[in-house]
Amino acid sequence: MDLMSIKNPKFLKNLSNDELEQLSADIRHFLIQQLSKTGGHIGPNLGVVELTIALHKEFDSPKDKIIWDVGHQSYVHKILTGRAEQFDTLRQYKGLSGFPKRAESEHDVWETGHSSTSLSAAMGMVIARDLKRTNEYIIPVIGDGALTGGMALEALNHIGHEQKDIIVVLNDNEMSIAPNVGALHNILGRLRTAGKYHWVKDELEYLLKKIPAVGGKLAQTAERVKDSLKYFFVSGMFFEELGFTYLGPVDGHNFNDLFENLRYAKKTKGPVLLHVITKKGKGYLPAESDKVGTWHGTGPYKIETGDFVKPKNTAPSWSGLVSETVRKIAREDKRIVAITPAMPVGSKLEGFREEFPDRMFDVGIAEQHAVTLAAGLAQAKMKPFLAIYSTFLQRGYDQIVHDVCRQNLNVFFGIDRAGLVGADGETHHGVFDIAFLRHVPNIVLMMPKDENEGQHMVYTALKYDDGPIAVRYPRGNGLGVPLDKQLKEIPIGTWEVLKDGSDVCILTFGTTIGMALEAANELEDRDLSVRVVNARFIKPLDEQMLHGIFSENIPVLTIEEAVLQGGFGSAVLEFASQHNYEHAKIKRMGIPDTFVEHGSVTKLLKEVQLTKEAAIDSILTLTPVKEKGMNYG
Amino acid sequence: MDLMSIKNPKFLKNLSNDELEQLSADIRHFLIQQLSKTGGHIGPNLGVVELTIALHKEFDSPKDKIIWDVGHQSYVHKILTGRAEQFDTLRQYKGLSGFPKRAESEHDVWETGHSSTSLSAAMGMVIARDLKRTNEYIIPVIGDGALTGGMALEALNHIGHEQKDIIVVLNDNEMSIAPNVGALHNILGRLRTAGKYHWVKDELEYLLKKIPAVGGKLAQTAERVKDSLKYFFVSGMFFEELGFTYLGPVDGHNFNDLFENLRYAKKTKGPVLLHVITKKGKGYLPAESDKVGTWHGTGPYKIETGDFVKPKNTAPSWSGLVSETVRKIAREDKRIVAITPAMPVGSKLEGFREEFPDRMFDVGIAEQHAVTLAAGLAQAKMKPFLAIYSTFLQRGYDQIVHDVCRQNLNVFFGIDRAGLVGADGETHHGVFDIAFLRHVPNIVLMMPKDENEGQHMVYTALKYDDGPIAVRYPRGNGLGVPLDKQLKEIPIGTWEVLKDGSDVCILTFGTTIGMALEAANELEDRDLSVRVVNARFIKPLDEQMLHGIFSENIPVLTIEEAVLQGGFGSAVLEFASQHNYEHAKIKRMGIPDTFVEHGSVTKLLKEVQLTKEAAIDSILTLTPVKEKGMNYG
Repeated sequence: MDLMSIKNPKFLKNLSNDELEQLSADIRHFLIQQLSKTGGHIGPNLGVVELTIALHKEFDSPKDKIIWDVGHQSYVHKILTGRAEQFDTLRQYKGLSGFPKRAESEHDVWETGHSSTSLSAAMGMVIARDLKRTNEYIIPVIGDGALTGGMALEALNHIGHEQKDIIVVLNDNEMSIAPNVGALHNILGRLRTAGKYHWVKDELEYLLKKIPAVGGKLAQTAERVKDSLKYFFVSGMFFEELGFTYLGPVDGHNFNDLFENLRYAKKTKGPVLLHVITKKGKGYLPAESDKVGTWHGTGPYKIETGDFVKPKNTAPSWSGLVSETVRKIAREDKRIVAITPAMPVGSKLEGFREEFPDRMFDVGIAEQHAVTLAAGLAQAKMKPFLAIYSTFLQRGYDQIVHDVCRQNLNVFFGIDRAGLVGADGETHHGVFDIAFLRHVPNIVLMMPKDENEGQHMVYTALKYDDGPIAVRYPRGNGLGVPLDKQLKEIPIGTWEVLKDGSDVCILTFGTTIGMALEAANELEDRDLSVRVVNARFIKPLDEQMLHGIFSENIPVLTIEEAVLQGGFGSAVLEFASQHNYEHAKIKRMGIPDTFVEHGSVTKLLKEVQLTKEAAIDSILTLTPVKEKGMNYG
Repeated sequence: MDLMSIKNPKFLKNLSNDELEQLSADIRHFLIQQLSKTGGHIGPNLGVVELTIALHKEFDSPKDKIIWDVGHQSYVHKILTGRAEQFDTLRQYKGLSGFPKRAESEHDVWETGHSSTSLSAAMGMVIARDLKRTNEYIIPVIGDGALTGGMALEALNHIGHEQKDIIVVLNDNEMSIAPNVGALHNILGRLRTAGKYHWVKDELEYLLKKIPAVGGKLAQTAERVKDSLKYFFVSGMFFEELGFTYLGPVDGHNFNDLFENLRYAKKTKGPVLLHVITKKGKGYLPAESDKVGTWHGTGPYKIETGDFVKPKNTAPSWSGLVSETVRKIAREDKRIVAITPAMPVGSKLEGFREEFPDRMFDVGIAEQHAVTLAAGLAQAKMKPFLAIYSTFLQRGYDQIVHDVCRQNLNVFFGIDRAGLVGADGETHHGVFDIAFLRHVPNIVLMMPKDENEGQHMVYTALKYDDGPIAVRYPRGNGLGVPLDKQLKEIPIGTWEVLKDGSDVCILTFGTTIGMALEAANELEDRDLSVRVVNARFIKPLDEQMLHGIFSENIPVLTIEEAVLQGGFGSAVLEFASQHNYEHAKIKRMGIPDTFVEHGSVTKLLKEVQLTKEAAIDSILTLTPVKEKGMNYG
């Protein structure tokens, strides 16, 4: 059918299963075609085609609330709710978001991006519904990976206790982003292979009758045997113990099976856990046969071959540079252990795992545990390297404060995807880490100007024995600079003058250094002498250099690809105030007090005015040269 | 025996069970006596006397690592490791900490305060042990309340999967701080009443043999029946499913039972969960019969009657003022729902619960879930009030950013215990919330000067419909000011001049206002005219007033009982920089970049130099009056 003509999911009510099969095929074809051009989360969406159709046929969205955990699997939902024609703009600036967005559709009732939030949100809606005495269904759809996140488990504990009506759809594809790990995953594995038990109920009752009637202590035992047989009827005992009615496993690509169980779930009182087995990448061979997570989210690809359209940049990825440097040093330093919360591929830790299988721990989506696990390792004199995306480190804030920094333990944080990340958008930008780490005592926070400095920073961090230390680095690839053979330590709290100058001084680090140098060079032509400093230590500051700069009375411009409030620029303001540099002129550039949407990093930088032009403008307002000709009232 | 003579736990090895019983009695007597004078966590410690003795007899600390979750139950451990004579100084400035402290003893291997961290930390030590090929036992001791914390569940998932040797002692007293809630709690309840199963094994096998041998499909069924009977042998199926060997339930006050099971646990390969039942407050009737949590942690009390020595301040507690105001407004506004993460008593929500039992949710120790549950309620047009301590809100940072603020949902945060909290010390001070909230877009953050303004702020927050809003308030009681009968809204982002003055301007809020006014009055006598502003909105700032102040060119002193980095004072610096007030003179007072220990708030304020004297000194360095006579090179 013509997917472009879909306005809302009502049309599904009248379709036969055969027609739904055809629709599924059409949607798969559409997704494979579209995403080959735009990129996107192809694997997860191909896996939930039938499930999404079944949910929208069986429930009445938006009255009934379907809540997509993580949300990268909401493309089919977007098609069924009238957004097919926007797929050309998927994940592009001002285009269709790759995640649910309330502003896009009334069917997007809850926005996501980070995992494991759907159960808590759904429970809030359930409580609201029951207090208002309305009767809509609330259906969170959560993956088996997201289920291991602590907040999802907290929510299960609460939902199971309250016994309110809610239908939790567990979308079990045996992978989240990478193959899943953890005891819960093992439980699901047993459930998957166990099959359905209800057909044996009659036979079982026959057997029960054969158990002899006995008296006394033995009778008590027999009673217990019968009790224990509920474990037989009910295969999802783990969830039953938590207070859920377990239904499943259901074939997530079989409409009959889906409808039968969804209807049963609707009739069931109290919390239901519907265990749906799906196949990630279903219907597109390269994605379907993916074993490691390559096809979770991709850039453009060639449909026929499944080859990715490679970007031209052949510089090493930042993640790879950091993980491989750690791996190299780990050959000499047996204390080093690597930890990832479910991102072995994204963090490029495959090489480390291959070489040191017993020194690498993928703990699943469990950022809090990951941080304190690292702290425990450090307490035992190991040197843990926690590779974690900036945005996901937000989940470990308390553990950083309470466990790592308060005890001043030698944890090395590799803060990946720091700064704007582009297409994943506002839930994924790594723009808060400076503001949420800078005020925590004891931590050292660095950002390198290029891969070569990056590898030295990794070395510095692994040699450092005075407490927690972090290197933040951006998404994507480095600059392609040559790498020194010999690793070296960078003295803590030292900055570096990249270009000298006497009229104004730019303090910046990481991704914004290039732009700052360009601005400085352009102003050189206008007879302005601009100093550019690589402020590679965000904490501690290079106090000696700052004293020098402020003593010269040279105006300062700080630039950071991070939020302004409480950021690096504020640290410079704090320094000047603390040391009574009352006449210091300081301007700050950074991300304003608002959430930044998705789009290419270049466009986003322009939107938040982190550009060479804006830097030049700021400098011109700062410099005496400019002021000469001006008349200030 | 003379507890003062204990140097380390080695002496336990030679004691008989009778002698251990006597020791237990001596320790209980000591604790009841000591804590009646100093206050402290009496209930939890009386509950673990035998358990702690048994652990120290059976294991070899510090080689073997005993890790106390939360840590407020470590008093017996402190006595057994040679610190009895320091109990006169318990929780006092420079005295014995109420929590494990590595600086105090080699037996304190891990510092705590917040709950649910012990399993992650222990797993880190387990991995380190196995890599180093040493053979110590690692024994985290976690309460049933702490077990519901998401990070503990994340850790269970990881530990169960890895199958390394670890002995998790589950100290189940059916209460954490308040009576426990949640599905896990229900599971533990079933285990407690189920008793021990192993004695019936023989009888069971007899029964199994009675099941007839059959062929075909029925044989398969019979096989499954046998499989399912493992649930019979193994009562702690929930934990067994997660990969643990479940042992218990064990009577935590019976040495025979404890030793038998601890020895069995030591011989067991892989992760063990030892379920120990204890009685909170055991041996002291007032504490033992406590049903709500009053005797969890107390101030001084009269031993004979169990009456608390009341402090003289009869002003309402801040928690009570806020919760009761919410309750009053909830009578008119049916959208209001109250949420607490396991702190119904501390947050004084008993009245609300009594009046609105279906509108109050204690979610257990589950701060992440609590925040996003509130977000879900707000999405459904309810008005959730989340009562949460500042220090515990750290656990919900990502949920605040990602779920509440990004979606701009109308959640009202009551941030309790903001500022220095005193005796609980460095893990509990609420000094980071301004720094970790101020940079998050969309949130409004207030702090009242007194209870009357506090109640109006609660009203303001509950009327506010433009997004998240928070009121922070300190531990303890208000000032005793009269309360207006009529509640009123305070315009968002408006400050208030409390005392006019023209030489210098103090911007401060909450607990430091009194001190600022005193400093101002004292300087009045020295002919300095000091303005004092109640900067009750920490975000957004009162921009109009700030423009006025900076246009006057009057020096500014900011004072906050919170960390300086990224705090309120930095917001003022940022404002001045952003608006080109280049000649603004701004000094900031607040908590420096270090963790603050335990002790009375008065002493701690002196330590961090948040005193009237320091304020006067700062003002004198700022004022032109002072400068007149000085010669700056």
